[in-house]
Amino acid sequence: MTTPQTLEAQMTDLGRKARVAQTALAAAPSPRRTLALTAAAAAIRANAATIREANAKDMAAGTAKGLTPALLDRLLLNDARIEAMAKGLEDIAALPDPVGKVLSSWQRPNGLTIDRVSTPLGVIGIIYESRPNVTADAGGLCLKAGNAAILRGGSESYHSSQAILACLHTGLAEAGLPQDAIQMVPTTDRAAVGLLLRMDQFVDVIVPRGGKSLIERVSAESRIPMFKHLDGICHTYLHEGVDPAMARAVVLNAKMRRTGICGSTETLLIDRAIAPALLPGIAADLQAAGCELRGDDAARALVPPMAVATPEDWDTEYLDAILSVKVVDGLDNAIAHIRAHSSQHTDAILTEDAEAAEAFMNALDSAILMWNASTQFADGSEFGMGAEIGISTGKLHARGPVGVEQLTTFKYKVRGTGQCRP
Amino acid sequence: MTTPQTLEAQMTDLGRKARVAQTALAAAPSPRRTLALTAAAAAIRANAATIREANAKDMAAGTAKGLTPALLDRLLLNDARIEAMAKGLEDIAALPDPVGKVLSSWQRPNGLTIDRVSTPLGVIGIIYESRPNVTADAGGLCLKAGNAAILRGGSESYHSSQAILACLHTGLAEAGLPQDAIQMVPTTDRAAVGLLLRMDQFVDVIVPRGGKSLIERVSAESRIPMFKHLDGICHTYLHEGVDPAMARAVVLNAKMRRTGICGSTETLLIDRAIAPALLPGIAADLQAAGCELRGDDAARALVPPMAVATPEDWDTEYLDAILSVKVVDGLDNAIAHIRAHSSQHTDAILTEDAEAAEAFMNALDSAILMWNASTQFADGSEFGMGAEIGISTGKLHARGPVGVEQLTTFKYKVRGTGQCRP
Repeated sequence: MTTPQTLEAQMTDLGRKARVAQTALAAAPSPRRTLALTAAAAAIRANAATIREANAKDMAAGTAKGLTPALLDRLLLNDARIEAMAKGLEDIAALPDPVGKVLSSWQRPNGLTIDRVSTPLGVIGIIYESRPNVTADAGGLCLKAGNAAILRGGSESYHSSQAILACLHTGLAEAGLPQDAIQMVPTTDRAAVGLLLRMDQFVDVIVPRGGKSLIERVSAESRIPMFKHLDGICHTYLHEGVDPAMARAVVLNAKMRRTGICGSTETLLIDRAIAPALLPGIAADLQAAGCELRGDDAARALVPPMAVATPEDWDTEYLDAILSVKVVDGLDNAIAHIRAHSSQHTDAILTEDAEAAEAFMNALDSAILMWNASTQFADGSEFGMGAEIGISTGKLHARGPVGVEQLTTFKYKVRGTGQCRP
Repeated sequence: MTTPQTLEAQMTDLGRKARVAQTALAAAPSPRRTLALTAAAAAIRANAATIREANAKDMAAGTAKGLTPALLDRLLLNDARIEAMAKGLEDIAALPDPVGKVLSSWQRPNGLTIDRVSTPLGVIGIIYESRPNVTADAGGLCLKAGNAAILRGGSESYHSSQAILACLHTGLAEAGLPQDAIQMVPTTDRAAVGLLLRMDQFVDVIVPRGGKSLIERVSAESRIPMFKHLDGICHTYLHEGVDPAMARAVVLNAKMRRTGICGSTETLLIDRAIAPALLPGIAADLQAAGCELRGDDAARALVPPMAVATPEDWDTEYLDAILSVKVVDGLDNAIAHIRAHSSQHTDAILTEDAEAAEAFMNALDSAILMWNASTQFADGSEFGMGAEIGISTGKLHARGPVGVEQLTTFKYKVRGTGQCRP
């Protein structure tokens, strides 16, 4: 007979188990973690029917609850998405081991040698919305870097996530690793999140994945450091030295390839000297693709059917087929606008003028600065990092895409021959 | 006529000025920052008398207030300490520029090249106790890495710190850099600290420098990421393979060279097999140097005049001439004790057995692990980093000594030829 635990005791228990499991995980050789990932991928394929059944329960409850079509689409797991999860775990398994690398090494005049060696971060808490595939991605990325994960998915995806978690546990068991290395908060009670955010004795970093309101709540409550993803108010600036054909192609891609991702361009800046020649064509392409344009007076004078951009537009992440357009007076003016309005995520300049491009990239302090490329490349896999757990707009530790390397820290190993400090 | 500002408006003003100054600082070439540092050093030497007068005011107020001799000693600035501050700034000036380094660089199959380039962190808030020299050290380190600093020193050192700040401002002015790059909170009102800790729109990182109560207060209140220095409960473990002469010399140094620093050993672990032969001699050395020993039963049986170690002793950072001593049953037992009681700052093994040493350094997750060296080497300048702003016991971004390199972050520069994301 067990007595019912309080939520607080349950959460403490979760934290303690994560710490113990993480120590075992860190001690296990890298091939065991790789095996756990490939075995989990196999388990997901073998249990696709069970996952679909669990997902059907979530979908029925979500429909009854009146979730929007967009939310229901995020919740849905079909065969292609289940296969993508399995493939994702195999891709993570194939990445080089990020742990145990000697990052730098030097010797002191007194003979001490100092190695800086990568190690797991420890226990990572991941709070996300109702995208069940995050359960596999986030759990897999943490595992690859030797971290224990405490997952807290959206309540609408509870059954789907539990079914996926069971597959991850199968993988861990097959590799002889503790199942507590990936745990899920065993309740949809929102108070559990508040408790998790204060468990700094057990949790080393919190990764919130989701919309603005989630991030804001987590930021306000967390006593634990976070990899925070704030807005992606990305700019593309057309410098007077831009190649017209490149401008047309890249702007269309930067805005419209996918409008709902954080690397999508939200504001177009264009030099006054080239606006009359270039803006009408660019605007026509965008409008033909279904994009709404909101401009300042100068832009509107060149493209008559353009709505007025209000001051709020320059600070808005639309995540939609809307673009604000502003005519600027050269490089310094563009830099000043971006400094005032960018969320320091990703900002791009298009120009054939290398000096202007370098000045732009030096002057601004965004996580990613691009020259002659679409802002939509702001992505861990496009950077060659493999999968990512998100894009950090914070400046500490992880900046930009957060892949397995960013889920590690380091320790110093100092080797001597009996040195005493004078 | 100016109307008196509220404290909140004053602090907001400070933050806004820091951001503006930091942008100018980041844009200035590295030799200008170096010049500001050497000019500040010269100003400190030239104004030594003024600094001593300001310090005399603080000392008189501190004496009247009944500060302990230890606190008064920390507050005191004599000629030697003033010269040390000036020399410290020159040493920082001589360090290589940590900003603008290409940390890594790669090319993607689509032709995009990606550079990871070091950049200043931004605005750093430093909260410290009444050690006026921290004003020069912390201001200088921030400046070297292109960061603006907002300093908040202990109220007892207010006049001394203002006099030092004036010299830093002279240096900035001589280099044509904005004086707002180093500002001091213009009040001793404690509420200012609370406001500073919530100014996340202006401050990128908070560095608390001081004792446990300061760190705890800052941790509880801060909405800004911190480089936190918690306890230094450091262990030295004598493995059965240790060279007896090395054991005697290193243990004495690790504990007694300076007992008040965070890298001082607080607990000695010794293997049961070698304790009868080694512990009496080591204990005699320590006791002769004025160290109090507190042991478990096995240790006390070997060194009769030893006090009893209570359970609290294993979790205590004495910062004093006291050492807890425990006899352990080999490597695994030592690792288990350190896991349970270490503050993950610095832990050492002494042995001639390389396999045991590597196992020890792999199994434990302290910021610094040492083999055959004194834990007192846990220090930025001993690591060859130049000056340090502290030692971080956190795992994110900066771990171990925090020097100028740790006061930087990075951005990605992505260069293309018009790539669009498929």
